Amino acid sequence: MLSILRALRDDGAVSRAELGDRLGLTRPRLTGEIERLIRAGFVTEAGMAASRGGRRSTLVEIHPRLRFAAVDLGAGSIDVEVVNGRLETLAAYREATDIRQGPKPILHRVGELLAKARAEGVYDRLDAVGIGVPGPVSFRDGVPVSPPIMPGWDRYPVRELLAREHGCPVVVDNDVNIMAIGERHGGVARSVDDFLFVKIGTGIGCGIHLSGGVYRGVDGCAGDIGHIQVDAGGPTCSCGNTGCLEAVFSGAALARDALAAARSGASPALAERLGRSAGLTARDVADGAAEGDVVCIKLIREGGRRVGGVLAALVSFANPSMIVIGGGLAQLGHVLLAEIRSVVYRRSLPLATGNLPVVLSELSGRAGVTGAAVLASDAAFEQVP
Amino acid sequence: MLSILRALRDDGAVSRAELGDRLGLTRPRLTGEIERLIRAGFVTEAGMAASRGGRRSTLVEIHPRLRFAAVDLGAGSIDVEVVNGRLETLAAYREATDIRQGPKPILHRVGELLAKARAEGVYDRLDAVGIGVPGPVSFRDGVPVSPPIMPGWDRYPVRELLAREHGCPVVVDNDVNIMAIGERHGGVARSVDDFLFVKIGTGIGCGIHLSGGVYRGVDGCAGDIGHIQVDAGGPTCSCGNTGCLEAVFSGAALARDALAAARSGASPALAERLGRSAGLTARDVADGAAEGDVVCIKLIREGGRRVGGVLAALVSFANPSMIVIGGGLAQLGHVLLAEIRSVVYRRSLPLATGNLPVVLSELSGRAGVTGAAVLASDAAFEQVP
Repeated sequence: MLSILRALRDDGAVSRAELGDRLGLTRPRLTGEIERLIRAGFVTEAGMAASRGGRRSTLVEIHPRLRFAAVDLGAGSIDVEVVNGRLETLAAYREATDIRQGPKPILHRVGELLAKARAEGVYDRLDAVGIGVPGPVSFRDGVPVSPPIMPGWDRYPVRELLAREHGCPVVVDNDVNIMAIGERHGGVARSVDDFLFVKIGTGIGCGIHLSGGVYRGVDGCAGDIGHIQVDAGGPTCSCGNTGCLEAVFSGAALARDALAAARSGASPALAERLGRSAGLTARDVADGAAEGDVVCIKLIREGGRRVGGVLAALVSFANPSMIVIGGGLAQLGHVLLAEIRSVVYRRSLPLATGNLPVVLSELSGRAGVTGAAVLASDAAFEQVP
Repeated sequence: MLSILRALRDDGAVSRAELGDRLGLTRPRLTGEIERLIRAGFVTEAGMAASRGGRRSTLVEIHPRLRFAAVDLGAGSIDVEVVNGRLETLAAYREATDIRQGPKPILHRVGELLAKARAEGVYDRLDAVGIGVPGPVSFRDGVPVSPPIMPGWDRYPVRELLAREHGCPVVVDNDVNIMAIGERHGGVARSVDDFLFVKIGTGIGCGIHLSGGVYRGVDGCAGDIGHIQVDAGGPTCSCGNTGCLEAVFSGAALARDALAAARSGASPALAERLGRSAGLTARDVADGAAEGDVVCIKLIREGGRRVGGVLAALVSFANPSMIVIGGGLAQLGHVLLAEIRSVVYRRSLPLATGNLPVVLSELSGRAGVTGAAVLASDAAFEQVP
């Protein structure tokens, strides 16, 4: 059932005959399932397929009336999309926000953006909503749990409220998990079963995709690698410990180090940029590196070495078949990637790295909403009677 | 089917009525399945159950003729057991060996031990064999893969040869994985779905039990945590890198450090022990610590701190619900455990450690054979037509 709907979602209209072949279902079994899906309004017939020699087979497709909402909440952004059953974007809104405003204003704004899409005729009713938030989530309960950068969100009933508002299934997950799911659906990890998606942004997190599904851990906080200690004598982290990975290298840490390098005059490129604006970001460091500024290149390399050290340990532990690097700092590009690769390949055992691509995300900013749409559609499909 | 057999294996004779209730199977469904299992010779009737009010239900049990062989090969030991369908030990042999002799003499010796059990009437034929080896294994192919401490074993067809010899299904796995399975079946991790089993012996490895099953990684080398770098300036490891966890703390590393402390005179307890024998082992350090020798306590604490640092990172990554410490160095006991706990609880986020027991293995030396027996029985059960 789920496999039929997923195939029609991901691959489009197909003849009954081919669908049966592809999924290994007998003709009567397939016919029965398709009839149920048509009755449930999830599948529809779409004309006749080209002849394969014998009797012509009818095409079936995912019902064109299906609508899913995909929401990706970041520390400083809201992404909302409405997609159809093929997960094609029908409406997309992106705007800056501050997650620290708390759940009420943020979810109210999400509601307004969805109402806008509805007013524009994009949908009449939603079949499911998928939403990612930048913190740990109890996937079972559909609530954030002790999210460090989301004051006011702890155990806020996100799923329950959205489900009541839209009258459909709602799935709540961690932002990095939905990015991993998105990258697997439409990005560089397409059809890869065991991979790590490492988001390097304001903070650092890891989506763990094992045996074909996201692994969330016992409390929903698996993949929280930003607080692994990499330097016992390092800077103090927002979590209270010292030398955490994200206190040493992340968007926030890089901005701090860039500012210091600009003020001390160590980096002419950064000093010049600071003269033009109020602060510095990872973008400035990336641009400085592209111009050959030694300090900028060093900052990126040192960060890559730290991330690489942690990833080498995780490769030894989890033996994945791919590592995908995404998030805002992926814009640091190949200098960062080269350093991460170098450490991972040098520090992990040959058996684990013999065939281990370490690559940049293909979807970048859209990985999250894509994954949220996949989760939403799966939730709707699982409810078919 | 598998669930019925596992229930009878793990819980013993039970009435049909209770079995149906426990597994949520309808009466006709259960009756059909039981009939098939009786015909296949895996289940037998065992008299009448006590009345529960209505018609008395017949007891069923796992067939008493079933026999599984469980083999645990260590770097320096062979453990062989023959068990019945309840996994009760009928014969057990343990002897010292050297895995570096290569596969032919070692597997020949395994064959001799099993022949001995057969000659003593313990079994007539085996229904399955489970075997663990101290190195990475391709679980799918049933062969060791590039095992660092097992010269001559690389891709040796262990499963194929044993299957031919005994005419039954054979499962080959890594030694730490079978220890984790054993601990879950009959030890401290009973019925825990997500836990890490950390073996600290000659080397260090980790069995990863996620969502109720062993996670082996893409190449079968998941859990190879002994080569995670913990000290960039540390000693050179057998793998060629520097400062690997097991180069800093393991049976071999502890013997090396103990010898240095005895020779330098820093530790009177160790110096005295070295005077009585040719070398020192972890046992000497444990005994010295029990006598209050400061250097011995320090060696164990420093080792615990290193292991704890790696485990804290793995807790952040995998968010397990329990950590079990086993292997030869578990004999260092509560000094080691206290240090590991202290670092894990201090270095991981509260959400992940809020309810995270870090405990010693209950089965110690028998965890491996127990797990091998579980794997063997599962392999036999999966073959029931």
